[in-house]
Amino acid sequence: MRVSFEELKTAIKNVLIRYGVSEEKADVLAQIHTETTYDGIYSHGSGRVARFVEYLTKGWVDPNAEPTVEKEMGAIRVLNGNMGPGVLNALYGVEEAMKLADEYGIGLVGLKNTTHWMRGGTYGKIAAEKGYVAIMWTNTESVMPPWGGKNPKLGNNPIVFAAPKGDGEEIFLLDMAVAQYSYGKLSTLKLAGKKLPFAGGYDEEGNLTDDPAAIEKTRRMLPIGYWKGSGLAFMLDILAVMLTDGIGAGDLDVKGKGSCGGCSQVMIVIDPSRMIDGNRLRIEVEKAIAHIQEAERVDERSSIHAPGDGMKRYHEEHDREGIFVDDRVWEQINSL
Amino acid sequence: MRVSFEELKTAIKNVLIRYGVSEEKADVLAQIHTETTYDGIYSHGSGRVARFVEYLTKGWVDPNAEPTVEKEMGAIRVLNGNMGPGVLNALYGVEEAMKLADEYGIGLVGLKNTTHWMRGGTYGKIAAEKGYVAIMWTNTESVMPPWGGKNPKLGNNPIVFAAPKGDGEEIFLLDMAVAQYSYGKLSTLKLAGKKLPFAGGYDEEGNLTDDPAAIEKTRRMLPIGYWKGSGLAFMLDILAVMLTDGIGAGDLDVKGKGSCGGCSQVMIVIDPSRMIDGNRLRIEVEKAIAHIQEAERVDERSSIHAPGDGMKRYHEEHDREGIFVDDRVWEQINSL
Repeated sequence: MRVSFEELKTAIKNVLIRYGVSEEKADVLAQIHTETTYDGIYSHGSGRVARFVEYLTKGWVDPNAEPTVEKEMGAIRVLNGNMGPGVLNALYGVEEAMKLADEYGIGLVGLKNTTHWMRGGTYGKIAAEKGYVAIMWTNTESVMPPWGGKNPKLGNNPIVFAAPKGDGEEIFLLDMAVAQYSYGKLSTLKLAGKKLPFAGGYDEEGNLTDDPAAIEKTRRMLPIGYWKGSGLAFMLDILAVMLTDGIGAGDLDVKGKGSCGGCSQVMIVIDPSRMIDGNRLRIEVEKAIAHIQEAERVDERSSIHAPGDGMKRYHEEHDREGIFVDDRVWEQINSL
Repeated sequence: MRVSFEELKTAIKNVLIRYGVSEEKADVLAQIHTETTYDGIYSHGSGRVARFVEYLTKGWVDPNAEPTVEKEMGAIRVLNGNMGPGVLNALYGVEEAMKLADEYGIGLVGLKNTTHWMRGGTYGKIAAEKGYVAIMWTNTESVMPPWGGKNPKLGNNPIVFAAPKGDGEEIFLLDMAVAQYSYGKLSTLKLAGKKLPFAGGYDEEGNLTDDPAAIEKTRRMLPIGYWKGSGLAFMLDILAVMLTDGIGAGDLDVKGKGSCGGCSQVMIVIDPSRMIDGNRLRIEVEKAIAHIQEAERVDERSSIHAPGDGMKRYHEEHDREGIFVDDRVWEQINSL
């Protein structure tokens, strides 16, 4: 169905208040879930409200916890999320990282003992819309086998790269898990009776397959680039541990507080105006976009996009027709 | 054939001196090319000497140029490589970045107008062996189509993640191009009459193929993770431009000074001792390695590695049997 921004936000906010979140915090959380939905990332917007409520009821997320500063030195801050709502912790983290970038040109916030930040792109977007470059990632529990192995021992460790276009709030935004597909995607396609566009894992015979059900069964998901993504996922996990004084995938598995319960996030924020003047930045952005658009299209249905372009298409659709919310998701939110 | 470290280094150094590199600089360059070969990255060690000499003779690399500081503020330095040898510029860059990390906990060096840094891992390794975490990347000329397009408009933009293991000079090192395979790899496998282990691009009919010759023909190389790697390559290019005041893939193509002639490199170096104590770092490193090693192997020939493990295997072999140098490469170096 289609709803307005305010309708969706109010529905989410009311649910959160019913489950013990303060009105002030519920307002911020509902705003972020609604913005994420508006941007077209349904899986981490409207689609994650029920799971967040489940985590609240299980005590896996403490709605009243606030982040605390553990270490401050130079352009570095280490924060303890105290198992509070991951979104609120990460919002605090990105604000701190922007302050550091204002002072030193670059800042790093290491946020440990936090919970699911929902869509990582949210925090890159906030920074880029204010003119900063951001590189951020989170570690997660184990969902993907290491290259050469069969059991999940690596997180999908989403990494975010965001940059301003130098023109108002237009930005580049890449928010990318290191797994080729998420379990959410596999499940959606399986229910729709569809195949993956490209092989996404191995079946029970050890062959690459595009059948989502077969991959759900083996849990042998492919990392992007095979051995390359396996190495990248490992590095993002161990760096998240080192740069936040946090815990890695193995200990997250043991902790067992749901997806990302106790995870670590690294937020590196940079002020590019220290390096490049605003006019040159705009010109270089235009050139980079024009350069990829020069490529001949694969076929008449193909289009070429810069990272973040997808949001604009969703905004247009949602402004025109209202924000899309899956009927079952809408019913679920209103019945929680 | 097999040679000693000193034999290889001396042969490379003599060649460089013959082509106008000062003795002091030739010594450093030969050392890096030899270390890279010793680490098993033949393509960017012994295998790149002839191309570097070609660039010197064409005037694409200025052997006498020194990097100059263009901007200094807070934890940021922007350096101009002045088209000098990329290895020397990058060595200077990583030293500066480590000094910034000493002062601020994190430092960023943006190096523009430089030339091929050979193996990017060299600079991550230097930092990690001294106890720093490093995230570094370079942009390159266009070698890979953007997702949805047919002509090369994206660089393969290698990105490096490096971290100490907390125990002497043992490190983690991931040095990864965003293309699934390099043209060098395609060429080597084609000459050997072999197929790629996984599809690496598209053939003339627009089908995915593991035939290296077919991909060389279309130049439709696959990025890692299909659309994901395409987005990542774009971001690494535009961020390299913004964070160094440099030029992007399109302008590198126009400049036409060979691979990476005039490119930009970003070096982010962090001192993890600000976040985590040395003992915990060691324990977490051991846990992370043990965690991936717990996975059942795919088959009896499979093994599981942490990023950088490959170097140790090459060191053992090279210590035992001498450093491997391809016969034709050895002959070429000695006849230049």
